[in-house]
Amino acid sequence: MECYFDNSATTKPVEAAVSAVALAMTENYGNPSSLHIKGDQAKKLLDDSRRIIANSLSCNPNEIFFTSGGTESNNIAIMGTALAFKRRGNRIVTTSIEHPSVSETMNRLEEQGFEIVRLPVDKYGVVREQDLFSAVTKDTILVSMMLVNNEVGSIQPISAVRRAVKRVGSPAQIHCDAVQAYGKIAIRPMDLGVDLISVSSHKVHGPKGQGALYVKKGTKLTPYILGGGQEENVRSGTHAMPTIAGFAAAVNECNSLSADYEYVQSLKDYLLSRLSCLPNLRVNSYVEALPHILSISLVGIPSEVLRNYLSSEGICVSTGSACSKGHRSKVLTSMDLPIPVIDSAIRISFSRFNTKMETEYLADKIIEADGLLRKSK
Amino acid sequence: MECYFDNSATTKPVEAAVSAVALAMTENYGNPSSLHIKGDQAKKLLDDSRRIIANSLSCNPNEIFFTSGGTESNNIAIMGTALAFKRRGNRIVTTSIEHPSVSETMNRLEEQGFEIVRLPVDKYGVVREQDLFSAVTKDTILVSMMLVNNEVGSIQPISAVRRAVKRVGSPAQIHCDAVQAYGKIAIRPMDLGVDLISVSSHKVHGPKGQGALYVKKGTKLTPYILGGGQEENVRSGTHAMPTIAGFAAAVNECNSLSADYEYVQSLKDYLLSRLSCLPNLRVNSYVEALPHILSISLVGIPSEVLRNYLSSEGICVSTGSACSKGHRSKVLTSMDLPIPVIDSAIRISFSRFNTKMETEYLADKIIEADGLLRKSK
Repeated sequence: MECYFDNSATTKPVEAAVSAVALAMTENYGNPSSLHIKGDQAKKLLDDSRRIIANSLSCNPNEIFFTSGGTESNNIAIMGTALAFKRRGNRIVTTSIEHPSVSETMNRLEEQGFEIVRLPVDKYGVVREQDLFSAVTKDTILVSMMLVNNEVGSIQPISAVRRAVKRVGSPAQIHCDAVQAYGKIAIRPMDLGVDLISVSSHKVHGPKGQGALYVKKGTKLTPYILGGGQEENVRSGTHAMPTIAGFAAAVNECNSLSADYEYVQSLKDYLLSRLSCLPNLRVNSYVEALPHILSISLVGIPSEVLRNYLSSEGICVSTGSACSKGHRSKVLTSMDLPIPVIDSAIRISFSRFNTKMETEYLADKIIEADGLLRKSK
Repeated sequence: MECYFDNSATTKPVEAAVSAVALAMTENYGNPSSLHIKGDQAKKLLDDSRRIIANSLSCNPNEIFFTSGGTESNNIAIMGTALAFKRRGNRIVTTSIEHPSVSETMNRLEEQGFEIVRLPVDKYGVVREQDLFSAVTKDTILVSMMLVNNEVGSIQPISAVRRAVKRVGSPAQIHCDAVQAYGKIAIRPMDLGVDLISVSSHKVHGPKGQGALYVKKGTKLTPYILGGGQEENVRSGTHAMPTIAGFAAAVNECNSLSADYEYVQSLKDYLLSRLSCLPNLRVNSYVEALPHILSISLVGIPSEVLRNYLSSEGICVSTGSACSKGHRSKVLTSMDLPIPVIDSAIRISFSRFNTKMETEYLADKIIEADGLLRKSK
């Protein structure tokens, strides 16, 4: 039995995405910048794809820009804002639990002289509103905060950011890395009050190597990837039509968010009820976290030992995120968890395609592992 | 009849590439950074793909870094070198006929205070070696020169760059945008004496949205896209496995370079011999240019009029490159061509899959267009 519970690392593309990618490599292989029949055909596919992504974010198609993925969206949003606003202020507010594509970009800006304020989180992995309000000052040019954390699923108080910015009358742009939230909960930029949103295809059962950046109409953003001026100069480079079409096809099938949410919640609840018999179980994800991402520790069994055992049984889970292998989790550390808990943590990440039977098998194998691995220590 | 002669804008992927992409979205959908069975499987595919690209450039696999395309490869190479070497010098030498992904990046560096020297070209669209030797000084940190020009196919004197750099004892890195040359002529970084080479998948019948950067072992390069540290930190972001696998599959089929070259040369020669009856024909590409790229002008018939006529007959050609629509060609202007010639130029770009019959049809339709469009003026 092959059971894939690492959907926050990447997902298996849906059939519609596979077909759409193939079609953009066979029938419709033109370059949408070309001014002839094959170009026109590709341009139509590009426009249709953009409309689908725009619908999914309740925004206008001209506010959606295609990128090569979540990492690039984050780089473009943050670097582009820093370049555009550097004359208006020097302070950038972010959190201590961002994905490396945000945190490393912040480190680079810090080297360049920007003042980076990294907000701590509480024991649930959530930024405190009061910290946010104290941190955002008049000379803050950017606040970048993720919507859902990739290791524990904690949901951040995004809509508070606009209030914090308004209160001090700062020119700050608000960026939200919504890669883990997208396709799982409704994201409406207007309601959230944000200017820039990063999303990724391969977390929503589309192809890897494709993302998008929502840029609110009128937002100033200096280009970061320079070239032929595609995507209104927000992101140059020949349009990646196969993955753009595949991304749109995958998003098109994310059309029952609340039913899927409840279904995934039921899988998570079932798993936790099964595991509650384990005396050394520690649930690191907050009860109100996105149910798709569950961090647990079988305290005393090192993360990689449990992960490898499960892998040998055909089950894929991860230790921390796929993007920070080999280091002690920054997120769990920020949550002030005891080191033995951190060193035993595994991340189980569900998708709407996981089944009850798979979850049963996962529970069986975790319980089995607890018995075996603890004894053999 | 559908005749695609815009292969320098983009190509139709080969079947092997389409299958490889599909396989990486169905069977082998894991994230190569994940440490479990699905991750291991993806990692193997990544390694295999890297080996294929390395073989095609006669280099080691650890000198190949996957990117989202030629534009990104160029941005990373140039920005990464400028960031790494800015304390050692301020001068960068390039040419006046680079692709926008190079020239726009140079413009950005100029704004940041770098001295950018743009070498002119002769009437054949080729940089003069003497200009290169005068331009490269001791404080030059980077020379970036394309191998084959994308509008006229002119081949640049790349191997002279290393001599120019050595002569003055400059620390300069040498970057070569080989996007239009790759898969058409043999490229051996050691023979060319270059440190960085950009290549792209969708110009060699692979998927769009995928490229690679050759970085000679030991070359200093500051990361430009920041994040999880994938690709040895040269390019962060989840590996785009479908397009990486598709790229490798396409490159794997570019295995008869010299036969293909001669075949394409024969198509070009045939076309030109057929068109030689047209009194207003001006061939803008040098006779020794890469035969895949042919720029011609039917002087007096505006480029877009001829392009649209051909498109209505099912033939795809371009005016200039797909990346600079709407502007008078910088390349043809640099070659000092008369304005009526520039304003009538079209680019016919062949691939090894074009047939003699297609080329006959193209010749017929250009001759027909010359009669019709000239009369109707």
